[in-house]
Amino acid sequence: MSITMEQVVALAKHRGFIFPGSEIYGGLANTWDYGPLGVELKNNVKKAWWKKFVQESPYNVGLDAAILMNPKTWVASGHIGNFNDPMIDCKNCKARHRADKLIEDALQAKDIEMIVDGLSFAQMAELIKEHNIACPDCGSHDFTDIRQFNLMFKTFQGVTESSANEIYLRPETAQGIFVNFKNVQRTMRKKLPFGICQVGKSFRNEITPGNFTFRTREFEQLEMEFFFKPGEDDKWFSYWRGHAHQWLLGLGVKDENLRLRDHEQDELSHYSTATTDFEYKFPFGWGELWGIANRTNFDLKQHMEHSGEDFNYLDPESNERFIPHVIEPSLGADRVTLAFLIDAYDEEQLEGGDSRTVLRFHPALAPFKAAVLPLSKKLAEPAQAVFADLAKHFMIDYDDAGSIGKRYRRHDEIGTPFCITFDFESQEDGQVTVRHRDTMEQVRMPITELKAFIESKLQF
Amino acid sequence: MSITMEQVVALAKHRGFIFPGSEIYGGLANTWDYGPLGVELKNNVKKAWWKKFVQESPYNVGLDAAILMNPKTWVASGHIGNFNDPMIDCKNCKARHRADKLIEDALQAKDIEMIVDGLSFAQMAELIKEHNIACPDCGSHDFTDIRQFNLMFKTFQGVTESSANEIYLRPETAQGIFVNFKNVQRTMRKKLPFGICQVGKSFRNEITPGNFTFRTREFEQLEMEFFFKPGEDDKWFSYWRGHAHQWLLGLGVKDENLRLRDHEQDELSHYSTATTDFEYKFPFGWGELWGIANRTNFDLKQHMEHSGEDFNYLDPESNERFIPHVIEPSLGADRVTLAFLIDAYDEEQLEGGDSRTVLRFHPALAPFKAAVLPLSKKLAEPAQAVFADLAKHFMIDYDDAGSIGKRYRRHDEIGTPFCITFDFESQEDGQVTVRHRDTMEQVRMPITELKAFIESKLQF
Repeated sequence: MSITMEQVVALAKHRGFIFPGSEIYGGLANTWDYGPLGVELKNNVKKAWWKKFVQESPYNVGLDAAILMNPKTWVASGHIGNFNDPMIDCKNCKARHRADKLIEDALQAKDIEMIVDGLSFAQMAELIKEHNIACPDCGSHDFTDIRQFNLMFKTFQGVTESSANEIYLRPETAQGIFVNFKNVQRTMRKKLPFGICQVGKSFRNEITPGNFTFRTREFEQLEMEFFFKPGEDDKWFSYWRGHAHQWLLGLGVKDENLRLRDHEQDELSHYSTATTDFEYKFPFGWGELWGIANRTNFDLKQHMEHSGEDFNYLDPESNERFIPHVIEPSLGADRVTLAFLIDAYDEEQLEGGDSRTVLRFHPALAPFKAAVLPLSKKLAEPAQAVFADLAKHFMIDYDDAGSIGKRYRRHDEIGTPFCITFDFESQEDGQVTVRHRDTMEQVRMPITELKAFIESKLQF
Repeated sequence: MSITMEQVVALAKHRGFIFPGSEIYGGLANTWDYGPLGVELKNNVKKAWWKKFVQESPYNVGLDAAILMNPKTWVASGHIGNFNDPMIDCKNCKARHRADKLIEDALQAKDIEMIVDGLSFAQMAELIKEHNIACPDCGSHDFTDIRQFNLMFKTFQGVTESSANEIYLRPETAQGIFVNFKNVQRTMRKKLPFGICQVGKSFRNEITPGNFTFRTREFEQLEMEFFFKPGEDDKWFSYWRGHAHQWLLGLGVKDENLRLRDHEQDELSHYSTATTDFEYKFPFGWGELWGIANRTNFDLKQHMEHSGEDFNYLDPESNERFIPHVIEPSLGADRVTLAFLIDAYDEEQLEGGDSRTVLRFHPALAPFKAAVLPLSKKLAEPAQAVFADLAKHFMIDYDDAGSIGKRYRRHDEIGTPFCITFDFESQEDGQVTVRHRDTMEQVRMPITELKAFIESKLQF
């Protein structure tokens, strides 16, 4: 079924998934706060990623580097020189636009799909003229020239605001991994191939953030840098592309809402020899979720040159020395959380003309794994005992407000896979009714089996 | 046993717990990166907090608000006006100091313990004169006057560096909770009393960060704001103080290394009527881990006045309207992780003159729950199958390098509670040897029982 962004944003807000940031003060640009259910959902996404990329992987380990790094890092990585967006202003209404997005959106309205990222400023200016593109805010055709705008947030550390104290909020988590390559390899006694995984916030001063949590200035990344011997590039690129695909499918994302797009030669970053984007079919169009890039030895080489640290690896078998190559699968935590939310959304017509909204999350991602519903407030004590017992292992809700039917609908709408009803018989026979979210089927089950039952449903 | 900071820092660095940040570029002030074992330890600390403060609590829910907030937030909270440290410069060597710390350290060296925080600038200047305090860097007594220094990191959002675009990195996670009080209460249909919990990074431009990860400019907080009806202050203050204490003890912190210090009247923040600090006995002295404060209705009232939002709560039972009072237990994630590391550290004399270093972590906190050790490389295949099976549920290491004795020592030193040796008999009888870190006792156990055995040890 199709869903509009308005529906997602409304459900997210009214059911405690995602609130506008600083809402009581009129917000702050495109910032968002994860509410009680949103934080559970997003934490589950992060845990599911860690499970498949760190915990179960025979190759990988984790890392958590600081957001604030020595600014020489950003000279070496190229961010100080090259991390710019093409900015253009409307001379009439003074609105500021990202030139590439302005062109892409205008062409998309004419049903022309085109990747503008990677074109020169002159080529973009030419496209604006050729297609007679107007300012979306005021309709004027009078634009300034296209200019560079560096996307890093700058701040000052220490007590004086001099350039010596100028530092940046990291624009990506990747560099925290590269600078620690030797530290990790040595302390964990790792041999190639191996990967280093990191979850963390990054910041980009986007000219035009938007589309809900899809493009925000503050965002969270799930990044891995996988190091291996040069020459094995195709093997590992394809291994991690497959692993990423399986991760999405295993957590229930519908394959028809995914597409894998290989970058054209002129669209590749200066450091990359191959990139595939996993795109998801958002209500506003296809959007990048996950970029799998071959970064070769670009980053390690740059850091070697700028720091003097030797990042050569001595192969214990062949005795060769070389700088490892790197495959980087980089996933946006907020984007993929949004994709899971959209993908799970369903409105179902029921018999008798009734309908229900249901979030069909994989149980591993659902904010609550189950809800305990006492049939009557008189059953509070034994029902709360069932809750307390399960809550030692899972996020469980205890819900005693309204009719059982209303409580079922409420939990459908927030994606709780199982509703456990404790009734008067439960006291006698030690059994409860378990109602399945997706099928609405109800089965009787001993209380003592609940833990193992829920646990079995969380596997993926 | 006592341990020095040098020992902790060395072990942390060499065993992959904590590396100096941006080390290859000479570091960046007092920043630190969590290595492969450190990120597991710290994640376990955060999960253990979430388990006891959100998951198992009948009162609480979670939240994850943005780091970047509308600056009006910081006007209302008082941070723009009052969040200052007293700064003093040495006129001779130009070193910059926090006046209160300068005095405290100088007095401590004379065995005088005194809380200087809360004194006026004139009182501090008087103490410097009275005790003839010198600059710790050069020995001079020639200081400037004491001045205010605002601790918030400032940056600019959007494309111009005008004051209209000035924003701050949050100096505490608490305000993200307060501004969302109504959003959470309404969407989760919460009645008082209830709490909102948050884990996240905060930033303070400390004049003198130091003591390893104890005081850093970028740090992570585990904060809860617990809302209740005014008048129930003592009850809830004591409830959460007890809960916090139990959490630390339940995870194995030695009670003799903890002290609870009630703030004196003149030391209390302007918004607080009662505060207790949990202090831990670090190698450098007693340091604050966890502050439990009664913030009354200060924050909600301030935000009501500055935003126009009504934060009154209508009690459904008494029909009274009031602004809730708040108890805030605020825990430093980096500090408590450091405390767990120090508390777990032990050097044990063994029979025969040998000794071992062992981190006696509670299994719930240990980076690896177990290590699978094949007795011979010939056993790789079946041993890896045991690893793969357990890794679906826990962080497990697979270690086949060196003698079994060496592997035991290595895992003692990183706190792995159980070493599982797969030997030639294991193939026949389906049993493995489980060696306990703390007692070094070895028991034979069926492979099929390992999962349940490990799981039972993780409870707390």
